[in-house]
Amino acid sequence: MDGRRKKFIKELLQKPRLRRESGLYVVDGPKMCAEVPEELLQEIYVSEQFIRGNHEPGLMELISRHGYEVISDRDMKQISDTMTPQGIIALASQKRPKGLGSLLDDIRERGGKGLLLGLECVQDPGNMGTILRSAEAAGADAVLCDRGCADIYSPKVVRSTMGAIFRLPVLQLNELCSAVDELCLRGYSVLAAHLSGTRDYDREDLCTDTLILIGNESKGLTAELSSHASALVRIPMEGSTESLNAATAAAVMLFEAARQRRQKKQHIS
Amino acid sequence: MDGRRKKFIKELLQKPRLRRESGLYVVDGPKMCAEVPEELLQEIYVSEQFIRGNHEPGLMELISRHGYEVISDRDMKQISDTMTPQGIIALASQKRPKGLGSLLDDIRERGGKGLLLGLECVQDPGNMGTILRSAEAAGADAVLCDRGCADIYSPKVVRSTMGAIFRLPVLQLNELCSAVDELCLRGYSVLAAHLSGTRDYDREDLCTDTLILIGNESKGLTAELSSHASALVRIPMEGSTESLNAATAAAVMLFEAARQRRQKKQHIS
Repeated sequence: MDGRRKKFIKELLQKPRLRRESGLYVVDGPKMCAEVPEELLQEIYVSEQFIRGNHEPGLMELISRHGYEVISDRDMKQISDTMTPQGIIALASQKRPKGLGSLLDDIRERGGKGLLLGLECVQDPGNMGTILRSAEAAGADAVLCDRGCADIYSPKVVRSTMGAIFRLPVLQLNELCSAVDELCLRGYSVLAAHLSGTRDYDREDLCTDTLILIGNESKGLTAELSSHASALVRIPMEGSTESLNAATAAAVMLFEAARQRRQKKQHIS
Repeated sequence: MDGRRKKFIKELLQKPRLRRESGLYVVDGPKMCAEVPEELLQEIYVSEQFIRGNHEPGLMELISRHGYEVISDRDMKQISDTMTPQGIIALASQKRPKGLGSLLDDIRERGGKGLLLGLECVQDPGNMGTILRSAEAAGADAVLCDRGCADIYSPKVVRSTMGAIFRLPVLQLNELCSAVDELCLRGYSVLAAHLSGTRDYDREDLCTDTLILIGNESKGLTAELSSHASALVRIPMEGSTESLNAATAAAVMLFEAARQRRQKKQHIS
């Protein structure tokens, strides 16, 4: 494989800045590569060993239609982020929403649910990925995150999303305070998950347009961002646990919103 | 530090079998060491750098009372599992429940809540730890796990529990089918989180004695164990997500149980 391309892909795995500047990121493994929307698929590389094996007909059709380059197993090992490369990687284009206004317009046009998640300084890539996966499953329209969060296009985040990264819009902002103010003006209820919250998350009405805010793994939400929220809510805890994992807190609140909305629908129909 | 002891601790970090045979495990860092129940605390090692620093008075009292050995920073680096050791590790005794019968007796004696979690082949240590942390916070009485699960005394599991490992009883069994049968006989409702479940988790009554079953990260619960459950339940999902992360699924179900129980209490009082 071309030495310069190999170097570029290796750097793409490591450098958030190069990902941002090139607008590209690396997708690893057959399951994830099969899920990249075709219009975002740029380059596909498969190893010699991969091409000799048997694979999903759908994936093989996709890569034949798109075109791919066969590279040595050794090269594959070098451009894969995993310990045991599965023999196929793709370069995909990032699909970034233009800004909060156009994101909300898009959500309205496709008849969204009015459920958003905001992440402040969530630093663990595994947590970030798991949160995006949960957010899609709970029916969130989009996720907002500040620049303190792990880069959503890093290999570990992409992997942990299990494909949600290709479908769920994620808006990356410098900070979230202005977005929170804007959403409040538009009638959103902004609920900050906070250890000193006085209201239980499940006693809130999560059926109206809602933004749920989740903070950093060890420090939680900043006082500044919390002060912009409509309310600080807590997840009641038993035992001596001081806090929940950030991805757990996000999931518990998102799925409570989903539950309340299903229940309301059943009551109406 | 004594070369043989150093070798023993290094092996204790790596070998589940040695942990099982010795009944010991390694606890890393000041926050976690401070939470080890004193009756389970065996040995404490602090680095030269640590002893020169300022620390929580509570922790310093604890280690003075118990006794500790000062070792070189280099030795500390070798017996710590983390990239940047925090200068203190402890060896603690495992506290394993004797069996299901005595575990249930203990739970009854301390007025437990009748909420158990069963894990089958949950392999990721981070997931295992996060699940124990969530289970304690949601008020579960204990966790059962089969031998396919990650060893709960591995360094990464211990760390991810954020201390729950010291408080929440975890019963390790060869397999879970017999325990499930036993719990059914004792009136527990056994709910298996399953992608082909036909009943929504939140439409079940989770206020009665309940065991929630969560399976392997990629394969879910085995058909055999599922067939022993009272019901297969699913967490409704939107979008194209195929499944939830195992720790997420566990948290969503456990906190729904906690929510229903709080709500019931409020109705009664």
